[in-house]
Amino acid sequence: MNYIDKTRQKIGIIGGGQLGKMMILEAKKLGFYVTILDPTKSCPASSIADQHIVADFDDSKAIRELADKSDLITYEFEHIDAEVLKELEAEDYKVYPTARSLEIIQNKYHQKTLLKQNQIAVPDFIKAEVIEDIYKTGDDFGYPLMLKSCTGGYDGKGNLVIKNETEVEKAFHKLAGEKNPLMVERYIPFKKEISIIAARDLKGEMRVYPIGENDHQDNILFETKVPAEISAELKNKAESLAKEVLEVFAGIGIFCVEMFLTENDRLLINEIAPRPHNSGHYTIEGCVTSQFEQHIRAITSLPLGDTGLLRPVVMRNILGSGNEGEAEIIGLESALEIKGVKVHIYQKTISRPGRKMGHLTVTANALKIAAEQALKASQLIEIRGG
Amino acid sequence: MNYIDKTRQKIGIIGGGQLGKMMILEAKKLGFYVTILDPTKSCPASSIADQHIVADFDDSKAIRELADKSDLITYEFEHIDAEVLKELEAEDYKVYPTARSLEIIQNKYHQKTLLKQNQIAVPDFIKAEVIEDIYKTGDDFGYPLMLKSCTGGYDGKGNLVIKNETEVEKAFHKLAGEKNPLMVERYIPFKKEISIIAARDLKGEMRVYPIGENDHQDNILFETKVPAEISAELKNKAESLAKEVLEVFAGIGIFCVEMFLTENDRLLINEIAPRPHNSGHYTIEGCVTSQFEQHIRAITSLPLGDTGLLRPVVMRNILGSGNEGEAEIIGLESALEIKGVKVHIYQKTISRPGRKMGHLTVTANALKIAAEQALKASQLIEIRGG
Repeated sequence: MNYIDKTRQKIGIIGGGQLGKMMILEAKKLGFYVTILDPTKSCPASSIADQHIVADFDDSKAIRELADKSDLITYEFEHIDAEVLKELEAEDYKVYPTARSLEIIQNKYHQKTLLKQNQIAVPDFIKAEVIEDIYKTGDDFGYPLMLKSCTGGYDGKGNLVIKNETEVEKAFHKLAGEKNPLMVERYIPFKKEISIIAARDLKGEMRVYPIGENDHQDNILFETKVPAEISAELKNKAESLAKEVLEVFAGIGIFCVEMFLTENDRLLINEIAPRPHNSGHYTIEGCVTSQFEQHIRAITSLPLGDTGLLRPVVMRNILGSGNEGEAEIIGLESALEIKGVKVHIYQKTISRPGRKMGHLTVTANALKIAAEQALKASQLIEIRGG
Repeated sequence: MNYIDKTRQKIGIIGGGQLGKMMILEAKKLGFYVTILDPTKSCPASSIADQHIVADFDDSKAIRELADKSDLITYEFEHIDAEVLKELEAEDYKVYPTARSLEIIQNKYHQKTLLKQNQIAVPDFIKAEVIEDIYKTGDDFGYPLMLKSCTGGYDGKGNLVIKNETEVEKAFHKLAGEKNPLMVERYIPFKKEISIIAARDLKGEMRVYPIGENDHQDNILFETKVPAEISAELKNKAESLAKEVLEVFAGIGIFCVEMFLTENDRLLINEIAPRPHNSGHYTIEGCVTSQFEQHIRAITSLPLGDTGLLRPVVMRNILGSGNEGEAEIIGLESALEIKGVKVHIYQKTISRPGRKMGHLTVTANALKIAAEQALKASQLIEIRGG
């Protein structure tokens, strides 16, 4: 017969955290077979994956095993050895997003350089190879300055604000500038931080989600409100920017494009993630097609789904509180009493202060109501080390 | 510490078909541990369950093993030996819905008798122990008549329409009336068949879903449209009826109440299912809380969720076509091209003509559009034995 049953494709995911778990929940609706690779036996995705290769993320033999068991490979986080993925691609394995996209994105200096080369606005930045580079940039840009590790950072880890000249040396050593590549960025006092989840498929088709407005606490996302309260003009600009970014990186699957809205209404790209993103969790209840289903559709050559917003929606993270220890969930009942509240528990065995243990989403007829209910619910539920 | 972490409860499900699978997909969002009992190793729920006891549904030892592994037991279909569940309850195992509810419902004659005793309108019915009972009822009600097996029927199996007196004997033998308990019902020429999904928790709290309008083909549900196009008065009546039914059966969890809307605008109860139901699949995309999440919430003592409709929605079943054989999915891509279409593939290995292999759901701003898109999508997708 002359057709391909797309659901016969086996999907391999590098990483079995909450993003992997939420990908699988969608992949299973469509009937796909999924194997994960994750070093933690009891990782969030483990109980719903068809197979679990328990191995380190830098175990190239294990990644190859995953590729052999799968028709295509994707990943839920960006700190993977791109060289291994490149080798696989050279042998005709399918890796989405491609190793090339990943390689550029995982080095922030290369990421921003490519954006700049394509006339996409980013905060001014300079490579910081030696301490003197920072002093020079300080004279140039003024203080405060952002110092960043070019690789390996997440949730603000690897980023430092240098308030003035006296902090330069300490900051350089703290981020181990002697051995790690660093970069300096102009500090951007922004009005809002927004993010756009966007999907691009193998044919280059793109779909953009409604814009989310993000709030961070201690560099970790704690709230996303959708739709963002910005002008229609800015909305259009932001959407075009997101599409340009996906074109530049030849993205396949879901990407997250974080932007600053500056005090004089400019949009600057802050960071790109080549995967479903925390600030896109609202799409599960808020949109016709969730970011996770969209990712699965894109990488399996199924058509992209409707990204329309069903109702205003607010997402809040549930971070570990109290001590480190076996996770205990307190107040789930009271949180679920509130109208429109949905709770996602990631099933991480151990809770640590600040660790992402779950999230909650509230949809309502008005954003104000959703935000109020989300605040209330997040004050009632707690996950902590017992 | 003085609290109960509800998500530590382990859930046991008798049955690992599509209903079990969809229950698990919701249970996993909330972080529950789930064990299933199903004789088929590759049943739809198997790949996402934490544990799978491969055993027959009437294997009382296996059911006891499931109970021992779980803090509470539920089921996805009603043809289970209620005696085993009663024994478990007597030993303080938790079974939801209770064995008593199940026992009455699984015998249609007992089900309707209890409804009638509680002044809830049902089609007239009579027990048919011998052929003469049917002739007598024929004289009384007139023809056509409905002949039904009191136990074991589903999807119209076990039901027969007797057009006239000459068909009585054949019908009685066809349903094996010599050994199986049968009943005769007055044939109801109805305007519409509607169903209400309703939930009741352990405290007796109830939530009712928007009314669905059902169409059957060859006695199998093929389409549900929501909201049903009936007057506000009838809507209120139907909702009250559904609540009365749940009270009468002391239901715990999700129940489906199927009703006939007669030509003179009366509402008669057709059938009750003590579980999530095919005609409630629209709640996954159409409502704030799906029937599956609601069921999990109810049986784990979590508060019931919002049953509000997000948008008009149409669900269509995808039944096996062609021959019996290994399932092949054709046209998934074209179906997903249509705006608002969501496809659920149950992952049954073998397709048989008429077997429920999946379903599709379309949400849209107007019911008419959703219905048109659902029709189009269902003409494009096909699952058949290869």
